[in-house]
Amino acid sequence: MDSKLELVKIGRAFAAKNWSTATSSNYSVRTSAQEILITRSGIDKTELEAEDLITIDLSGRVVSPSGAKSSAETLIHTAIYDYFPKANCVLHTHSVFGTRLSLRTVDQGRISLSGYEMLKGLAGNVSHETIETVPVLPNSQDIPAFSKKLPAVFKENPGVHGFLIAGHGLYSWGTTPAEAKRHIETFEFLFECLAYETLGL
Amino acid sequence: MDSKLELVKIGRAFAAKNWSTATSSNYSVRTSAQEILITRSGIDKTELEAEDLITIDLSGRVVSPSGAKSSAETLIHTAIYDYFPKANCVLHTHSVFGTRLSLRTVDQGRISLSGYEMLKGLAGNVSHETIETVPVLPNSQDIPAFSKKLPAVFKENPGVHGFLIAGHGLYSWGTTPAEAKRHIETFEFLFECLAYETLGL
Amino acid sequence: MDSKLELVKIGRAFAAKNWSTATSSNYSVRTSAQEILITRSGIDKTELEAEDLITIDLSGRVVSPSGAKSSAETLIHTAIYDYFPKANCVLHTHSVFGTRLSLRTVDQGRISLSGYEMLKGLAGNVSHETIETVPVLPNSQDIPAFSKKLPAVFKENPGVHGFLIAGHGLYSWGTTPAEAKRHIETFEFLFECLAYETLGL
Amino acid sequence: MDSKLELVKIGRAFAAKNWSTATSSNYSVRTSAQEILITRSGIDKTELEAEDLITIDLSGRVVSPSGAKSSAETLIHTAIYDYFPKANCVLHTHSVFGTRLSLRTVDQGRISLSGYEMLKGLAGNVSHETIETVPVLPNSQDIPAFSKKLPAVFKENPGVHGFLIAGHGLYSWGTTPAEAKRHIETFEFLFECLAYETLGL
Repeated sequence: MDSKLELVKIGRAFAAKNWSTATSSNYSVRTSAQEILITRSGIDKTELEAEDLITIDLSGRVVSPSGAKSSAETLIHTAIYDYFPKANCVLHTHSVFGTRLSLRTVDQGRISLSGYEMLKGLAGNVSHETIETVPVLPNSQDIPAFSKKLPAVFKENPGVHGFLIAGHGLYSWGTTPAEAKRHIETFEFLFECLAYETLGL
Repeated sequence: MDSKLELVKIGRAFAAKNWSTATSSNYSVRTSAQEILITRSGIDKTELEAEDLITIDLSGRVVSPSGAKSSAETLIHTAIYDYFPKANCVLHTHSVFGTRLSLRTVDQGRISLSGYEMLKGLAGNVSHETIETVPVLPNSQDIPAFSKKLPAVFKENPGVHGFLIAGHGLYSWGTTPAEAKRHIETFEFLFECLAYETLGL
Repeated sequence: MDSKLELVKIGRAFAAKNWSTATSSNYSVRTSAQEILITRSGIDKTELEAEDLITIDLSGRVVSPSGAKSSAETLIHTAIYDYFPKANCVLHTHSVFGTRLSLRTVDQGRISLSGYEMLKGLAGNVSHETIETVPVLPNSQDIPAFSKKLPAVFKENPGVHGFLIAGHGLYSWGTTPAEAKRHIETFEFLFECLAYETLGL
Repeated sequence: MDSKLELVKIGRAFAAKNWSTATSSNYSVRTSAQEILITRSGIDKTELEAEDLITIDLSGRVVSPSGAKSSAETLIHTAIYDYFPKANCVLHTHSVFGTRLSLRTVDQGRISLSGYEMLKGLAGNVSHETIETVPVLPNSQDIPAFSKKLPAVFKENPGVHGFLIAGHGLYSWGTTPAEAKRHIETFEFLFECLAYETLGL
């Protein structure tokens, strides 16, 4: 499938799961060494269309259509593509479980996941005994400053598959849109498991 | 899109989220200085059709079709349009989370929301650090009396984006149907977050 | 709409809400003084079709198609039609919330609902201040014996709109399929509210 | 319906219920004494197609298409078919409730279910008073070793309809795809009931 259409399909599937309430969330795909397609700002993701994807370069500048406004968090996407040369798709979701989990763990700065078969949904994991670390970062409205801190976070967490921003949501990525989707779904499942575990379930 | 069709689409989307159980909830759009379209009384919102929207004037009287009965809460809609000249769409939902939250906070008379990126879904908010106040009003079957109290509530809460009625549900509005929809979705997401926070999640 | 098609539509809508897990739940409509259409036994309600409705008489005997097996709980439906001459549709759902609520309240024999605007979804209720009583009956596999006890339950609870069977589910009814649907949706919403209230929400 | 299409339909229905997050879960049907159709490895079940079912023999070797990779858990399926000659469909789901329940009960090695009408969804059960035992087994990445232990588990639990693997999910089976589906739905409903019971609901 065309990667543009694939991203639209993923965006609509995530909207149906209530992971992109209001006009939150943003999605991108790297289509060449020079070009990224990213959702434009302020779109209701239940109605995401191919024409809502705009073209930016690797520094985050809009290439086309001229005058279009890319997502406010564009520089987070480009920071991920810059650090991970094999990443070709970046997805960012806002679930209730992820939002609450991030607020309750931001002081520790990370969460650890282990003992779940679902961990094998993250590329490279071959056992439920894996210990997966998810960095949890304080939220900020200064996206340029926030995105400049990401390389250090990635360096400290080799093998990282995603991170949470407190009170905000999840970023994950993959070599393909399908892999990035699988990563988001895996994390969201596990965040829900952690919530239920906290309740004694 | 035609605002009538847009309202029907929103109504069906909200029904699918279980925000308009039974025949609860009502929706309206202001189409001119003299005219409001509002859902007629007693409609199952999963089957909402354009012909279920009836025309009223700004005082809440049915203009057409003659003999039609507008929503029992019509005067709440007109009170909102009267106070907020830029509001062109009013939406009212009945979620389980909103219902419970309103009952547990009505004695304080308000809830405060802060620390959530999702707050930026409300028009004018630019940071998760915003403190958003949501008035919580006692329920009443005397809608004329209830609606007369709204201007004072709005005056006490400058910048208010919506209010809860205890054991009943949420009212919010926007300059367009899309904005009103975004406001409702933002509030419902945040009400769910507050519930999970109460559980220690 | 044809009442057969209406019942099929309701059955599929309820299945989509997870109120008829596995092949549970059964639905009927009274189409004349002599005839009731009821779901046959063992149907997956996500695939309910008009031909899954079989004709029985008011004593519960299958009229057509010959050899068909009506729902195991047919006599509960006929007991309701017998006691309430205006009831023309009976719906029975198995939700998780209803199941748990019934098990935790069966020793008291009833639950009381009040303070919810949604109570107005039950025919005749005009205020959230109504006190609605829902009888909770012990479960039994002896349906003839169980159904014989229902008239006394109805007599003790004038104005009753439905009842729970412990660990089993909800029965409600209405003058039309639409009203019966509205009653079920109202109760299920309120059962969910009661659960959240128990959690301190 | 063709059993291949039936399995695809079940797989998509389960995906819609969030029982096969990421590319988890696997499904099979025994089509003859020599042949089993099973989902191939790594499929997103929301997009399951008939061509994603590959043919294996009863020892788990891929028959066609040549070079295809069957599910990593193929030997669990074949162990079930081997022990239960009447089982013609095996389904394996990964729900959040099943995952958490299995982790919290694996030390006891089993859970007991009783008092629920829904238990009658499991073939042969005629009363809510049935005591249904579900073995809970530790997870393992050594599927050949794991599957060799299953006959002893089945022998110790006559009448068993399914088992949980800790932190992993549910296996159940039936004489037909429809029966296996009914069994999975019954168990998942009851697992959710147990969770709510733990919360005091």
